[in-house]
Amino acid sequence: MPILVPGPASPQLSQRLSEISGLSEVKVSYRVFPDGESYIRLEEPLKGDVAVVVQSCPPPQDKRLIELLQLVDASRRAGASKVIAVAPYLAYSRQDKVFLNYEALSSEIVANVLCAMGVRAFVTVNVHSEAVLKYFKVKAVNVDAFSEIASYIKSLDLKDPVVLSPDRKRHPEAVRVAQRLGCESAFLDKRRDPLTGSVVTEEKALDVMGRDVIIVDDIISTGGTIINAARIVSKNKPKRIMAACVHGLYAANAVEKLLAAGISELISTDTIESGTSKVSVAGALSSSLRQVMEDLL
Amino acid sequence: MPILVPGPASPQLSQRLSEISGLSEVKVSYRVFPDGESYIRLEEPLKGDVAVVVQSCPPPQDKRLIELLQLVDASRRAGASKVIAVAPYLAYSRQDKVFLNYEALSSEIVANVLCAMGVRAFVTVNVHSEAVLKYFKVKAVNVDAFSEIASYIKSLDLKDPVVLSPDRKRHPEAVRVAQRLGCESAFLDKRRDPLTGSVVTEEKALDVMGRDVIIVDDIISTGGTIINAARIVSKNKPKRIMAACVHGLYAANAVEKLLAAGISELISTDTIESGTSKVSVAGALSSSLRQVMEDLL
Repeated sequence: MPILVPGPASPQLSQRLSEISGLSEVKVSYRVFPDGESYIRLEEPLKGDVAVVVQSCPPPQDKRLIELLQLVDASRRAGASKVIAVAPYLAYSRQDKVFLNYEALSSEIVANVLCAMGVRAFVTVNVHSEAVLKYFKVKAVNVDAFSEIASYIKSLDLKDPVVLSPDRKRHPEAVRVAQRLGCESAFLDKRRDPLTGSVVTEEKALDVMGRDVIIVDDIISTGGTIINAARIVSKNKPKRIMAACVHGLYAANAVEKLLAAGISELISTDTIESGTSKVSVAGALSSSLRQVMEDLL
Repeated sequence: MPILVPGPASPQLSQRLSEISGLSEVKVSYRVFPDGESYIRLEEPLKGDVAVVVQSCPPPQDKRLIELLQLVDASRRAGASKVIAVAPYLAYSRQDKVFLNYEALSSEIVANVLCAMGVRAFVTVNVHSEAVLKYFKVKAVNVDAFSEIASYIKSLDLKDPVVLSPDRKRHPEAVRVAQRLGCESAFLDKRRDPLTGSVVTEEKALDVMGRDVIIVDDIISTGGTIINAARIVSKNKPKRIMAACVHGLYAANAVEKLLAAGISELISTDTIESGTSKVSVAGALSSSLRQVMEDLL
C-alpha cells in the first residue's frame, strides 16, 4: 500500500487526504536548527511501499522546496520503492518561461531538482501556468480545485450572484465556477506596468447593483489585483464583495488590506493552510493520486 | 577567459577575487518578488566562457542555495561553456552522514542538485566535514583559510599569545595557526548533550595568566562553544580573549552574546560578509581556482 509522508507545510491537508483515501501516514520528525537549517527524518521504515510526499511550497518558498527534497530523500532512505511528490502550491510557477535573455528559468530548476532526487511522478493543484508541467521528465499532473471552491460558494446564502474574474486571461476559471452556481460571470482587464510591476485595472461598468459579487482568481499574493477589482465593483453598488482563490499566499499583510478594501469574505483552499482555508483539495487530490498510482504500477 | 558571476550573498568577495585574479565580473540583476521568490538574470552573454559562480550559502541558507541554482542556470542560458560553482560557506555540511535511520542526508542533496544543474567543478572554503566533498560527482575542492587568519592575527600587537581550540577534535587547526604565529596552542574538551543539543565544555586549568588568548574554530553559529571556552579561560586571568573563525554565522544575536562574554575582538573571513569579516579568502580562492580551471580545460 502507498503511504503518505506529510511535510511540515501540509499537516492538515495530509491528514484529510489520509482520511479520504484510506492511505496511512508515516510519522515525520521535523525541526529547524538554531542556524536555520531544516532537518527531516521518517520515524518508521517504508519497506518497499510507494511514498506519497505531501509538501506545499508557499512562503518561505525556498525553505519549503529544500524540505521537499529532504522528504523525498528520507523516503527513499527509509525504503520507498517509488516516490510521488505532491506540491499543492508549486513555488516559482510564475517564472514559467524565459521572458528576458540570460535569466534563470526557475520553474524548470524546480522540476529538474525534483527529478534529480528520483521523484517518479509529480502532482500539483491549479498551477499558475501549465507550461511548467512540461519541464518535468516524469508524469506531472495538475489537479483542479475550482469545483470544490464552487461547491463551497454554492453553500452560502447568496443574492443573485455574479462571478467576476479580475483578469480576462483567467476568465475561463470564473466561467466554470459560474456554471456550477448557475449564475452569470464577468471579467475585468488588468495589465502589469512593466517598469513598476504594479497592477493597473481598467474601469468598467458592471451590472452588480444589489447583488453578491464573488471575485475569483488562482492566486492571491499581495492582493493588489483583487483590491483593484473591488474598487471598481464597489462603484456599482453591490450587496457584498467576496474573494475566492485556490492559493492564498497573502504576502505583505494582504488579508488586512483586502478586508479594508471591502472584501466581506475571503475563501481559499488548504493548498496553503491558513485561517481562510475553508475549502479542502483532499478529495480532488485523492482521485488524481489513485490514477497516478495506477499508472506507476 | 573565465568570467566571475557574483551572487547576491558574495558581492564583496567576488569583487576582491576579480581584483586578485584579474578575471572580470559579469553584471547580475537580482531581486526578490513581493511573495518572496528570488529572481536572477545575467545582464550580458558569456559567449562560451567558463562561468565561475560565487555565492555563499549562510542564513537564509535555503534561499541562498536556490539562488545558487538560479545563478548556475542563468550562466548556462547566457552561453557559459562550463560552470564552476564556488560556495565559500557550504550550507548543510554539518549534516554530513546518516546519524539516525531514515533521515535526509542534506549535504548529499545539496551536492546532487548542484551536479544535476550541470556544475562541472565545485569549490568551498573550510567545509565543516570533508566527507561532504565525496557526494559531488565532479571535482570538489576545499580551500583552507587558516593561513590568512593566522597572518591577520600576527599583525595584531599580542602579548605572549596562546591559540586555543574549544574542541579537541578541531585542535589541528589551532596548531596550524599557532605554528604560523610561533606560539603555543591548547585545547578544551566539549561534548554536545544528545537530548538538549546544548554544548558542555569540561573545566580545565590553562596557563594563560596575563597572556592574550585567541580561540579558533571553523564556524561560529550561536556562539555557545566559544562562550563556554571564554568562561573557562577567564578563570585563569588572561590579558585579553579574542575569537577567530572562518565562517561567522552569528545565529540568534551571537555577536552581542560573545562581546558580553568578554570576547574583546571577533575575527571572521568574507566567506560570510559581515562587520567581523576582517580577513579575505580571495587570495586562497584565486590560487585554487587557477588549478581547478586548468584541470577543466
